[in-house]
Amino acid sequence: MSRLTLVSRNKMFNGSHERYRHFSERGQCEMTFAVYLPPQVLQGYRVPVLYWLPGLACAGENFPLWSGAARFAAQWGIALVIPDAPVRGAGAADSAGCGLGQGAGFDADALCGLWAAHYQMCRYIENELPALIEAHFPANGQRSIAGHGIGGYGALQTALSYPKRYAAVSAFAPVTDPAKMPWGQKAVAARSGGSPESRAQYGITELVQTAADRLPVLIDQGSADEFYPHILQPQPFVDAARGNGFNVQFNLREGYGHNYDFIATFIDSHIEFHADALGL
Amino acid sequence: MSRLTLVSRNKMFNGSHERYRHFSERGQCEMTFAVYLPPQVLQGYRVPVLYWLPGLACAGENFPLWSGAARFAAQWGIALVIPDAPVRGAGAADSAGCGLGQGAGFDADALCGLWAAHYQMCRYIENELPALIEAHFPANGQRSIAGHGIGGYGALQTALSYPKRYAAVSAFAPVTDPAKMPWGQKAVAARSGGSPESRAQYGITELVQTAADRLPVLIDQGSADEFYPHILQPQPFVDAARGNGFNVQFNLREGYGHNYDFIATFIDSHIEFHADALGL
Repeated sequence: MSRLTLVSRNKMFNGSHERYRHFSERGQCEMTFAVYLPPQVLQGYRVPVLYWLPGLACAGENFPLWSGAARFAAQWGIALVIPDAPVRGAGAADSAGCGLGQGAGFDADALCGLWAAHYQMCRYIENELPALIEAHFPANGQRSIAGHGIGGYGALQTALSYPKRYAAVSAFAPVTDPAKMPWGQKAVAARSGGSPESRAQYGITELVQTAADRLPVLIDQGSADEFYPHILQPQPFVDAARGNGFNVQFNLREGYGHNYDFIATFIDSHIEFHADALGL
Repeated sequence: MSRLTLVSRNKMFNGSHERYRHFSERGQCEMTFAVYLPPQVLQGYRVPVLYWLPGLACAGENFPLWSGAARFAAQWGIALVIPDAPVRGAGAADSAGCGLGQGAGFDADALCGLWAAHYQMCRYIENELPALIEAHFPANGQRSIAGHGIGGYGALQTALSYPKRYAAVSAFAPVTDPAKMPWGQKAVAARSGGSPESRAQYGITELVQTAADRLPVLIDQGSADEFYPHILQPQPFVDAARGNGFNVQFNLREGYGHNYDFIATFIDSHIEFHADALGL
């Protein structure tokens, strides 16, 4: 297991907002993540962990601050863990890791679908990061997961693929069909040669229709989101999930955009949703 | 009066987070500011305005988000107005406006003391910006003022100079003696030729000792602030204010730094303090 190097530590809501870097076995590159440890940790308790997967262009290290999530994580006693950037392999051309076609590549990790195929992120989120967190921090083994935009896709895909590992999943403005995104089409075409069968493996709507473990789902979508509804089309996913017996809360938020102003407005209800699912 | 150009507008906590630019008469340059309009404004009410003066290296446009202030401004029905950057005259060498000796210069505005001498900011805050705000937005004429770091100095100096215009003043980690700052010493020396008399005009501690109008004061200082206590020394100011009959709440916050993680933790108490002073 790789060593963690502390990058920064700041007191916040009587807890601690910390940033670390480490060498990822999965990505074969340096990765960073942020963690918010609630005051309960400093008091000696083990706490559940909510993983937050940031959007494509959003550095995650400031999520506990910008979203306002730390205030509510402190109240409920939930640790927040946020991988800061997609895994970037040696082939990555873009230090921000957010550009089209600049990720570690299409040949990375077939099992994880498009998101991981593009960034090798899925396996990192599913295995390497939780193992690191649970080895180095006082986590009690309970997990929940959430995300924004393409990170919302990652959260939904991860939770649907490994539902026993997570108490619940929530997302702000999630991508539910990556083939609708310009780089998604490119990536799908590159991987599948255009066949509809191969394409289906990237769709979480298909995944949710056949899932046997039905964890609670919460989705918020802003009606003034610049990517809605031509790229972000949550309704088919929501319908498919409800059709298969999932308990889905879906809120279309009138006038809200695709940004932290939107996330901050509703983050309290997401933290509360996870707290409830975690039995807090 | 200059025209306002809308730069961006995002819905947030049922209110509106907006950014504008305009040509400043005072600075003879383009200025930007951010405003958070609480939901009460959208419902047709006129509301009080809390001016927030950001720290030296802190862009203010994201203050409503990063500090978490918008959540509480929305609850109390207070508009937030944040000038984004120091006034930068034609002589400014630095587009960020934050560097040593790169502001509009020492010869700008003698009445405003060091802060304005460096940036022409004081007159802009005292006159031009409130006039603009009250002409273009449904402000009810009540004002309060707050700031961080050197912006905390600006807030205290402005409030002490014009106490009838503000209900209260609060500050996070304020500079109270700019001569303690490296660029402060340089600026004081350049302006005063080193004489103690000239130097006194920049000191808000001297100002608070003789003030006749005593508005409420709230100051929070983190004990782990990298500038505390060698540059930030609030105690002599607090003592002087209390000695002259001011009601000063001063909180030394154990373990907190000089950053938004600190501000976000205590912003609710500052908004509540201003709400109380504004009679809300």
